[in-house]
Amino acid sequence: MTTDSIGDVTAQSFIFAEDEPFCLESGETLRPVTLAYETYGTLNADRSNAILICHALSGSAHAAGYLGGDPDKVGWWEDCIGPGKAFDTDRFFVICSNVVGSCYGSTGPASLDPATGKPYGLNFPVVTVGDMVRAQVNLIDHLGIDKLLCVAGGSMGGMQVLEWAAHHPQRTHAAIPIATTAHHSPMLIAFSEVGRQAIYADPAWNHGAYYDKAQKPDAGLAVARMVGHITYLSEESMQMKFGRRLQGLEKYGYEFETEFEIESYLRYNGRKFTERFDANSYLYVTKAMDYFDLTQPTGSLAAAFVGSLNVKFLVISFTSDWLYPSYHSKQLVSALTAANVDVTYLDVRSSWGHDAFLLEVETMTNLLGSFLDRLVREEQVAAPAGYAPRALPAPIIGAQPNRTRLADSLA
Amino acid sequence: MTTDSIGDVTAQSFIFAEDEPFCLESGETLRPVTLAYETYGTLNADRSNAILICHALSGSAHAAGYLGGDPDKVGWWEDCIGPGKAFDTDRFFVICSNVVGSCYGSTGPASLDPATGKPYGLNFPVVTVGDMVRAQVNLIDHLGIDKLLCVAGGSMGGMQVLEWAAHHPQRTHAAIPIATTAHHSPMLIAFSEVGRQAIYADPAWNHGAYYDKAQKPDAGLAVARMVGHITYLSEESMQMKFGRRLQGLEKYGYEFETEFEIESYLRYNGRKFTERFDANSYLYVTKAMDYFDLTQPTGSLAAAFVGSLNVKFLVISFTSDWLYPSYHSKQLVSALTAANVDVTYLDVRSSWGHDAFLLEVETMTNLLGSFLDRLVREEQVAAPAGYAPRALPAPIIGAQPNRTRLADSLA
Repeated sequence: MTTDSIGDVTAQSFIFAEDEPFCLESGETLRPVTLAYETYGTLNADRSNAILICHALSGSAHAAGYLGGDPDKVGWWEDCIGPGKAFDTDRFFVICSNVVGSCYGSTGPASLDPATGKPYGLNFPVVTVGDMVRAQVNLIDHLGIDKLLCVAGGSMGGMQVLEWAAHHPQRTHAAIPIATTAHHSPMLIAFSEVGRQAIYADPAWNHGAYYDKAQKPDAGLAVARMVGHITYLSEESMQMKFGRRLQGLEKYGYEFETEFEIESYLRYNGRKFTERFDANSYLYVTKAMDYFDLTQPTGSLAAAFVGSLNVKFLVISFTSDWLYPSYHSKQLVSALTAANVDVTYLDVRSSWGHDAFLLEVETMTNLLGSFLDRLVREEQVAAPAGYAPRALPAPIIGAQPNRTRLADSLA
Repeated sequence: MTTDSIGDVTAQSFIFAEDEPFCLESGETLRPVTLAYETYGTLNADRSNAILICHALSGSAHAAGYLGGDPDKVGWWEDCIGPGKAFDTDRFFVICSNVVGSCYGSTGPASLDPATGKPYGLNFPVVTVGDMVRAQVNLIDHLGIDKLLCVAGGSMGGMQVLEWAAHHPQRTHAAIPIATTAHHSPMLIAFSEVGRQAIYADPAWNHGAYYDKAQKPDAGLAVARMVGHITYLSEESMQMKFGRRLQGLEKYGYEFETEFEIESYLRYNGRKFTERFDANSYLYVTKAMDYFDLTQPTGSLAAAFVGSLNVKFLVISFTSDWLYPSYHSKQLVSALTAANVDVTYLDVRSSWGHDAFLLEVETMTNLLGSFLDRLVREEQVAAPAGYAPRALPAPIIGAQPNRTRLADSLA
């Protein structure tokens, strides 16, 4: 267990009003819609201390603490959310919601289609990052929050952050997009598509209709995850962590069993992923990422932020992230600057690749902490009743990234 | 058709002597062994003008000209091998052999196992790059060539080149390893393993026993190829070639059909690959690449080349190659320098990623040409009888890389 955890947390659900169909960018409507979410900390009297955390491709609403009191069910961003942490739950009311299309309690392809009484499968409508965020806007309305202090997230979470800032700028004071992009590049689309093709290639996928079958498309989903997993690491981090070491062998076995540690690691993570994620959700969520392109419809990224003058940005990238390379963030920063938006940018030197946003805890704590301090000052955010500032935590310089977290990336 | 082609070429086969079993690094023996090869140009009187070309993962012995006179069957390195080209067939006797384990006429998993009379499948012994090269040594012996002028190749071809230089240094005057590495990194192993897992995941693979079945593991092999294909390109080349353009659509279709051009390209190439390559060969050849590690057994790469003092090296890497990044070549050059070996190194600025070794024709022609000129001078290589130097070809500055070649990478 991590010290200073928010502790036991409870899964919550928000069911959209039945009489208000949720309209999607595709033109389809979705009804009913459930959004799974969690909250940590206390909303202050004027409801001005709320922070929304957006998760990545395979993440969930469970971002911090121990779900249902189970110490094995630690939140995916436990290192950054909690009392005295970067997103300090003593001061802030932190919300994390699962995205529409996912499989962690929100409406998605595994949900029952009211038209048939069976799981949607491929009858689930294609959703976009814009749809995901409008669902979150509904949640914020439901929670009675007029304006968030900030929205933060990495990877696909960062895309949601940008969507909030570009299309709902009046609903947040600040935006923290981390290790992300304003438009999926062809290489990102290519990796997504290979993952989807691996799922399609699995006969057990059965065009998405497998929920009542004994066999699930686990083999295909595992391959998709393995491809993705490689892209979350860096050559340097793989070299440090695995090198060419063999797994429990002194020398080559000259056969096709697992031999190298990196192979064992990938196989393990591929298999483990199938125990927690739904193959159809993998299709829908990667598709939403591929569609994400804030340069549309004008072709200009700066144009996307003309309404965002009052949103303060903290943009973070990582030098060894080759999936969302720093230059994507630099393009974003240029566009924000061109649009005259207040932006702070940091390209963090790290060898952890894309996963750095989950692993560079000390740097993230410092960066996020000082940016949030500034927001609190400038927006005059009151702490919740009973708040007492903590003594500064012991420095964690030299602390090793959490290996368990690395072993089961939630990117 | 390319001008200045060597023209019609013929597939040739060398069958190893039956009484000499071919011993593999694994300790297994292989018998019978057939090696498919082709030759271009004329061997000179003292047999000193022979150049061996080594192919990459999915390549074949058909490196130049039109196989069997078919103008659609152009060699994979046609741009660099032919009359007046980098490997000038007016001056040199160029040999290209298919590797053991492959599926282009050489003994591999699809060959008949004499013990059963059926295709080997997974009973085929695991082969290494060392085994591939020892088979080539046999071929050179068979051709009556005591010492090659040089050995050249890119990607896995480059590994064979390094193997020649390190373990058979008395058999070649020079070595040209291109876009390669002296030891497969964990990231390279990871990509290989994902490709293999995609094949294993296909029920039609049937543990390698599919040769007599109607259904082949095409779906798995296509996914493996798609993963590989991404790694042969660069983000920049994908951006230039595809961007986020849709394939025959004005706007998003909000479905899972092919939409982006990059998706269409990957699907097409994945499918096309299954028409020409064998899934089991994909397993065996990638495994050989993963095993390749010239730092063994001492841990020192320089130690691998202590016997290579008389081999002249031309090492070439490409700035946008993230599969075999330039620093792999730089480590190799450092080791060669430490071993006091004669080495010329060029890190070619290119946006074509790993495939640059097939596409940067003008640069390659200049680099290879001047290095080979030097070898001819220093080794006093006589031209074949009747050789007349050509007028310099028209400069090809600004020529576009061959798109067809890019579309069907032979890396």
